[in-house]
Amino acid sequence: MQRIKRELFGPGPTNVPESILQALSQPTIGHLDPEFLRIMDETGERLRQCFKTRNALTFVLSAPGSIGMEASFVNLLERGDKIVVCVNGVFGGRMRDICERTGAEVIVVENEWGTPVDTNALQETLQNHGDAVAVAFVHAETSTGVRSDAKSIARIARNHDCLVIADCVTSLAGVELLVDEWQLDVVYSGSQKCLSCVPGLAPITFSARAVEHIKRRKSPVQSWFCDISLLMSYYESGEKTRAYHHTAPVNSLYAMNEALRLVVEESLEARWSRHAEAANHLYSRLESAGLEMIVEPEHRLAPLTLVRIPDGVDDTAIRGMLLQDRNIELGGGLGKFAGKAWRIGLMGQNATLERADFVADALITGLQ
Amino acid sequence: MQRIKRELFGPGPTNVPESILQALSQPTIGHLDPEFLRIMDETGERLRQCFKTRNALTFVLSAPGSIGMEASFVNLLERGDKIVVCVNGVFGGRMRDICERTGAEVIVVENEWGTPVDTNALQETLQNHGDAVAVAFVHAETSTGVRSDAKSIARIARNHDCLVIADCVTSLAGVELLVDEWQLDVVYSGSQKCLSCVPGLAPITFSARAVEHIKRRKSPVQSWFCDISLLMSYYESGEKTRAYHHTAPVNSLYAMNEALRLVVEESLEARWSRHAEAANHLYSRLESAGLEMIVEPEHRLAPLTLVRIPDGVDDTAIRGMLLQDRNIELGGGLGKFAGKAWRIGLMGQNATLERADFVADALITGLQ
Repeated sequence: MQRIKRELFGPGPTNVPESILQALSQPTIGHLDPEFLRIMDETGERLRQCFKTRNALTFVLSAPGSIGMEASFVNLLERGDKIVVCVNGVFGGRMRDICERTGAEVIVVENEWGTPVDTNALQETLQNHGDAVAVAFVHAETSTGVRSDAKSIARIARNHDCLVIADCVTSLAGVELLVDEWQLDVVYSGSQKCLSCVPGLAPITFSARAVEHIKRRKSPVQSWFCDISLLMSYYESGEKTRAYHHTAPVNSLYAMNEALRLVVEESLEARWSRHAEAANHLYSRLESAGLEMIVEPEHRLAPLTLVRIPDGVDDTAIRGMLLQDRNIELGGGLGKFAGKAWRIGLMGQNATLERADFVADALITGLQ
Repeated sequence: MQRIKRELFGPGPTNVPESILQALSQPTIGHLDPEFLRIMDETGERLRQCFKTRNALTFVLSAPGSIGMEASFVNLLERGDKIVVCVNGVFGGRMRDICERTGAEVIVVENEWGTPVDTNALQETLQNHGDAVAVAFVHAETSTGVRSDAKSIARIARNHDCLVIADCVTSLAGVELLVDEWQLDVVYSGSQKCLSCVPGLAPITFSARAVEHIKRRKSPVQSWFCDISLLMSYYESGEKTRAYHHTAPVNSLYAMNEALRLVVEESLEARWSRHAEAANHLYSRLESAGLEMIVEPEHRLAPLTLVRIPDGVDDTAIRGMLLQDRNIELGGGLGKFAGKAWRIGLMGQNATLERADFVADALITGLQ
């Protein structure tokens, strides 16, 4: 059966290259098949290149990006631990929610939506909470289109001897991300953003420091599915036998293997530039048509742009018309920006000048 | 790139029909696209038919079967609740592990591996633990190839006013399963067994009684990803707006939609018969060759057969040879049966007389 085809300019999923869809539909093999284990090792190695890390524990979780978030916190935190969570949008808020469910004490650094994490406020908070074990933040807030200064946040956190957890769902392979150089301890992402893969997988990496911290836990991890001590025995290669944990989503991992191959082939740096150029082109096209960006230029997130909905324009009517008539998906606003902004993604395959023109033309024409 | 093709006669994944792989590789669309929401509703309706239920809350979790297990327990249980878990293999043991991580008090009914749940022992246990809130058991133990008497277990549990949680990972669409008639409250499965779909998804259904129980919770569900109160707002159709929770694995759900369509087209009853006939044929072929089944005839699980490894035969050598020379995957023993039994799956597409002959011929020849 042929399904409908859309032009995906929302917050993800983005359009998926043909070679990835082909990889996806290869015949299924067993999750303990030596050939599959080889592909998993290869995938891990490619993922290390994309994260710019040498972390041994670098793999792809068998569930969407939000399980990456959950796995980070349930492994690192124990009841009563103190964590500082920087919130500047929906996904920072979700971090807080998940942390609270671990029984941790959550100290929140609140930031205005549409602005990056305030590093001075973080610094002050850590001075008052010297016993915090970790700092968490969202590198690329998909709800606001803001990029925060991961390098500075991590430096401050480490000066206070905190582990650093970074949500890089919309930054991996789209904007600069240097896991080892910036000394990030737990970093997770999603498959359906700048990797241009199908949705449903969460690439993740843990530093040796994070693994040591987890090994010192006194209580069991509250999630069996996310328990890294169990997952390690399946994902870590080496001479020992791989232990069965759960049945890996073999076909989706074929797709991820191909998606990562495409990134490595292009080179990360070229991909970051491509995303930046496409976004800059989009800003100028939309601004020329009188539209206004929500985020200040220096804090914009290239893969995802928030555009203010002009006064008197009906949000859902415009998005509905683009979807119905042109098969174009734009993202609606989320949380505080619902009804106030559109979210336009130029991610992965769609991060080109041509695709920026395509969506800008459609939106500008639609508004006339 | 062409990946290797295997003949999958292990404990799952099984071989995936071409039409499901084609559905899988259709162009990705957005998880909030009205067309995708329509497909999700259709999928839910087909799933109700396969579970033989009218439960409103019937949907496909965005992760492997083991998240179905975790979602069942973390939603139903609160710290200090008492639950009776029937253990007769690896997956019952995993239930216990997950329950303990919720802080519940876990009462275990231990059964010998290779035998079904002892309903008399369950009855006695419940007489001593009248305050238990739930009974959990594995309908089809994938580690031992045993089918337990779900109908009787559920009747006993309900006589003691307990909710009933059933792991039906290897029974859904392979052997008789009547969720409403047997009054099972939470039932989950996996995509890669008798549905013959790609691995990575967990069909699940909650009775109204289970939903009411969850609504009376005093504490938040410890897992954000598995929190049914959040998931309901995305999965339940109706006039209200669908709320974004996580990005659904769109392509895998296309595949699941097609897998369920194939089941409905064939009819559940025909599919159950087909699995039974294929299994019976396998038993007689293997027994004619002098091989011995582990499980007594009346408790055998048609989709998965445990065959005793004859004395002096090298388990890994035989399985390695079949894989290398014939591209045939058999399952190794799990837990107490490691090195002692093979697990031969005849699931979904592979549950036919021809495929039973194919794998029997290969094994018998391999042993000569």
